[in-house]
Amino acid sequence: MNERKVIEQPYLLFLGDAYDQLAAKTARGIVDWRRDWCLGQLRLEGCQASAGIPDISVAEAAEAGARTLVVGVANRGGVIPDNWLETLGAALDRGMDLASGLHMRLSDIPVLSDKAKERGASLFDVRHPARDFPLGSGEKRPGKRLLTVGTDASVGKMYTTLAIERELNARGVKADFRATGQTGIFIAGDGASVDAVVSDFVSGAAEWLSPANAPDHWDLIEGQGSLFHPSFAGVTLGLIHGAQPDAIVLCHEPTRTHMRGLPGWPLPDLRECLAANLSAARLTNPAVVCAGVAINSSQLSADAAARLLGETSEALDLPCVDPMRGGVAPIVDRLL
Amino acid sequence: MNERKVIEQPYLLFLGDAYDQLAAKTARGIVDWRRDWCLGQLRLEGCQASAGIPDISVAEAAEAGARTLVVGVANRGGVIPDNWLETLGAALDRGMDLASGLHMRLSDIPVLSDKAKERGASLFDVRHPARDFPLGSGEKRPGKRLLTVGTDASVGKMYTTLAIERELNARGVKADFRATGQTGIFIAGDGASVDAVVSDFVSGAAEWLSPANAPDHWDLIEGQGSLFHPSFAGVTLGLIHGAQPDAIVLCHEPTRTHMRGLPGWPLPDLRECLAANLSAARLTNPAVVCAGVAINSSQLSADAAARLLGETSEALDLPCVDPMRGGVAPIVDRLL
Repeated sequence: MNERKVIEQPYLLFLGDAYDQLAAKTARGIVDWRRDWCLGQLRLEGCQASAGIPDISVAEAAEAGARTLVVGVANRGGVIPDNWLETLGAALDRGMDLASGLHMRLSDIPVLSDKAKERGASLFDVRHPARDFPLGSGEKRPGKRLLTVGTDASVGKMYTTLAIERELNARGVKADFRATGQTGIFIAGDGASVDAVVSDFVSGAAEWLSPANAPDHWDLIEGQGSLFHPSFAGVTLGLIHGAQPDAIVLCHEPTRTHMRGLPGWPLPDLRECLAANLSAARLTNPAVVCAGVAINSSQLSADAAARLLGETSEALDLPCVDPMRGGVAPIVDRLL
Repeated sequence: MNERKVIEQPYLLFLGDAYDQLAAKTARGIVDWRRDWCLGQLRLEGCQASAGIPDISVAEAAEAGARTLVVGVANRGGVIPDNWLETLGAALDRGMDLASGLHMRLSDIPVLSDKAKERGASLFDVRHPARDFPLGSGEKRPGKRLLTVGTDASVGKMYTTLAIERELNARGVKADFRATGQTGIFIAGDGASVDAVVSDFVSGAAEWLSPANAPDHWDLIEGQGSLFHPSFAGVTLGLIHGAQPDAIVLCHEPTRTHMRGLPGWPLPDLRECLAANLSAARLTNPAVVCAGVAINSSQLSADAAARLLGETSEALDLPCVDPMRGGVAPIVDRLL
């Protein structure tokens, strides 16, 4: 239960019969950030999505050395339908492990769990914690930590965190992305789905996720939810306290008209949101600072985006970037 | 899984072989607040504690109409030892249900679960959520709500909440205690152990716990943890957001030298703590106010306690009481 077992690469990405491109968001995320881990995609008849990499069969993936078939598709209810089982079973037969972020567990499907046992293969149900976590201790540990926080859920925290990892690594700085959600776990090969952890242990899970490290090493921790989201703020606060960030980066989606899933709930003001996150983070790291603001401007024209970034930077006196448009160099400059 | 099933009274309180008085804290709490629900206590050989009520046997309790044997004792590891099973089995044989707040589940002990099935009896493992909860919606619901919050964990939030229920009921105001921890659940007959709920659903559990009610009805919600406790603050915040309190009462233990379980961690300043709780609560109820401060002064002399209550009341301009010394009338005055 408590051993640390990493999902092995390379991956075969399974897209199933995804009914639209959005349903394959997980697969796209993996390809965006770990292209070299992905041998190809496998799509069933009727699949309406693509991760933009070659289509290959289970046999071809096995021959190319695939270690894990990753279910890179979401569907209503998070179920694993019967028409996937032949492909998933075939992957086990060819020596692969299976990994899924769906609600229904691979390990609860007898035909898969029996075969996995027989073959000595692992089944990773990354939505469900695979280990017990201790209570958070609040104890300071060596190494540096950055956490992304947001005005809302789903505003680009994972992409921002990964962009910072890429930039730090490019500059020769030791840094590791630490995943707290399903897609992130496929990208990191490991992690903790903190929103599925029993509430008493969320800060402990965050401490486990970013353990003591070299003084010049950065753990880059994927944020979850928002302190201003009435459904998820408790998860966010536990993550902040356990992460003990030296630096936070505030993420925002400027065209969102209400908090995700809650029509009528306004988004917080950026300045108020930043102050609340810094105040919360000070409990376990009084030295926390904000390293910058990351805006997902994909819904804006290039001109409008540039204007917004400039205005926000000036108003908050912080670097302000769109990680997918201009990169995160100004944030990393400030960090270092 | 999702039906609402209440623990039936009257109770037989089982103290087992409690090794000291503190180990029977749960039984004492039940007797303090629901004396008329308790037919008697059952102690095994070597028991070093008493709940201060008559000793009776399983047979006597059954004859007096006991509906549930409640395990009112805690022990290291939260286990149900073998030497309890004869008594627990006998209670099932005499038509009682069993209820426990220990970590080990009654329902995981085959000799008990088999017998319960055979007898049509219920096993309540109140530390573990017995139902699924929805995500918190943030939607405002009718009825009034009060939540106790604290400078630390274990500073008297449950006792304060119950004292307010008693005072409101004495004044003819409709009010219900809503339990969020094990002892509270025995006292309420129902509730949700929020620290054992998956983190994503804590605010939803708090909404479920205090559903829509008459406009003049008060739900009095037992608080958990503290926004300033680095292990538990996420639980506290989810509870605050789901409870949507119209009023909070701040609870404090003035002789505590560090946060519970964390030597070296100072307690927050009362004013700072109050401001942080009000700020957090405003997200789902902008009209929230503080109704007063409840101080557990049991470690102080009567003179020192009176002085502290007076000084605190003046400093914060709020009613300040020790619920166990002088009652909570000033807080309820302000509430109404």
